[in-house]
Parts: sequence; C-alpha cells; structure tokens
Amino acid sequence: MKLVIVILQDKDAPLLLDALNEKGVQATKLASSGGFLRSGNTTLLIGVSKEKVHEVIDSVKEHCSSRKQMVNPVSPVGGTTDSYLPFPVEVTVGGATIFVVDVENFEQV
Amino acid sequence: MKLVIVILQDKDAPLLLDALNEKGVQATKLASSGGFLRSGNTTLLIGVSKEKVHEVIDSVKEHCSSRKQMVNPVSPVGGTTDSYLPFPVEVTVGGATIFVVDVENFEQV
Amino acid sequence: MKLVIVILQDKDAPLLLDALNEKGVQATKLASSGGFLRSGNTTLLIGVSKEKVHEVIDSVKEHCSSRKQMVNPVSPVGGTTDSYLPFPVEVTVGGATIFVVDVENFEQV
Ligand code: NI
Ligand code: NI
Ligand code: NI
Repeated sequence: MKLVIVILQDKDAPLLLDALNEKGVQATKLASSGGFLRSGNTTLLIGVSKEKVHEVIDSVKEHCSSRKQMVNPVSPVGGTTDSYLPFPVEVTVGGATIFVVDVENFEQV
Repeated sequence: MKLVIVILQDKDAPLLLDALNEKGVQATKLASSGGFLRSGNTTLLIGVSKEKVHEVIDSVKEHCSSRKQMVNPVSPVGGTTDSYLPFPVEVTVGGATIFVVDVENFEQV
Repeated sequence: MKLVIVILQDKDAPLLLDALNEKGVQATKLASSGGFLRSGNTTLLIGVSKEKVHEVIDSVKEHCSSRKQMVNPVSPVGGTTDSYLPFPVEVTVGGATIFVVDVENFEQV
C-alpha cells in the first residue's frame, strides 16, 4: 500500500476527483494554502495499492499539469487614452506536486 | 517512531481524542472532507513509538468502527394519510481508514 | 527526496515560512488544531532533498523552539483593592514537532 499526497490548484480538484472516482480510487481532501503553488491549493491524501500508483499519477498529469492559458486582461477603470489597446496575455495555470510514501500498515475499520 | 494517519468521521473524533489522551498519545487534527468517508471527516496525525502503534489502532477500532444504527426517520411535514407509519431504519455510521508510515527522524524543539 | 512534516504554533509560521523561502524551500500550509500544541497550530508539508533536511530542521529550531516569555497579565476589570499589584509572568510559547518521512517517488507536473 502506498500513500500518494498531491498538492494541486483548487480549480483542478473537481476534475481530478471525478477521474480518480471513476477508477475506484478514493481521496481525502485537506484545505491548504501557499507553498508549492501560490494560492488556493488543495492537498489530497490517496491510499492505493503499489500497482495503482502510476494510474493516480497519470490522472494528475492529465488533469493538473502546468499549462499556458490566454487571459483577457481587465480594462483599466476609466481608461480613456486612445493608445490603450487591450489584448489577451498568456498565463501559466495548474501544476501539481506529488509525493509517494510507503505505507507499512493499512486498515479500514 | 511511526506516523499514524487516521481519517474518521467528525462525530467520532472527540471520543477517540479523549481515549488517545488518556494513553498519553497526542494527535493533531486537520480539517478534511470527502473521499474515504462521505462527508464531514477529520484527519488526525499521530506520532507514536513503534510499540504504541497497536494501541492507537485498538482505540480507533473501539471508537470509530463502522456500525449499524437504528434511526427514526423524520415524519413528512404535514403528512396526514392514515397509511403513514414511521419506523426506525438501519443506517451505517462511523468507519475509519488508518495509514501507518515510518518516520526516519522525529524531533520536538 | 524527503517529506518533512512540521507542526508549529500559528504565530511562528510567518517567520519560518520566510526563512524557508529564502533558502528556496517551499512549504504547503494545512490548517490544524489541538494535539501536540494546545491551540491554533499550523501543519506544514515540506518536500526537500535528503541533503537539505537538516537546513529545514535548523530553521524550525531557530524560529519555533519552545521558549520563555514575560507577559503582562491583564488587570482585573474594576479591580480597586490597594493590595493588587500587577507584575509580568513567565509563560512558555512556541515549540514544534518535526516528522521526516522518506518519499519513494516525487513528481512535479
Ligand atoms: Ni499509466
Ligand atoms: Ni492491543
Ligand atoms: Ni545545519
């Protein structure tokens, strides 16, 4: 048995939890902040057999990988200069950190 | 030294914490949700010597095991039919998941 | 790779997080309570290479060690007896518990 600890962005959590659920993998969600990811992150505790660890990691890669996204910046309030021309900017979203730890003893009671 | 991670239902936490405290075992409580247990769960981090792990597991089994409970369903509001006869139904409550992880280095400062 | 789990008092967290940040070490913060420390504690998850574990422990010792502090007690409301003479009392603050756990597999995606 292994314990997989995943730290991911809040907004990527629902899709990952759905994907894990479809594979019959249960996760416990802890409220967390800061650190590996700037703000609003979630920490998941996932207990799986050694054989299923790579499936969990695959799901995290699929749903939480760091990626580029085009975002329309908010127009400046009261901006009136003719030279202002808003255009989408590229930002990085997502990203996750995964720790796999050995479990010596696992019980469900 | 071992780290025992217990995920249990919120309502079983106070009795377990009391039982651990009587054995001189301290636990740190993390707010958690979903996953192994449907809703309102608590995650405990418990650091104990190898020799005391079974005592912690015994306490979890005693206070948190999955069990049947008879619950009186709430009467339907404004229910007036003579045929309605409320009776207790059996539900499953409690349950806990336990992970024991080896601790390579333990310090209190 | 090692996972260092630190349980410390809330009020010591900002200085420790700054110190870790200066060393290029990232920490994820979990809300926690009770247990090792009486009230208002924080749990940090810190992933570092084996070589940097002692640096993390050094930072925790420097910023979170249990220490004595003189505190001025609050005057009793409406206290009027001439015999009342407030004086500072010594209290213990800080303190932290550190667990170091081996990480079998570490990934950032
Ligand atoms: Ni695969
Ligand atoms: Ni026993
Ligand atoms: Ni050093």
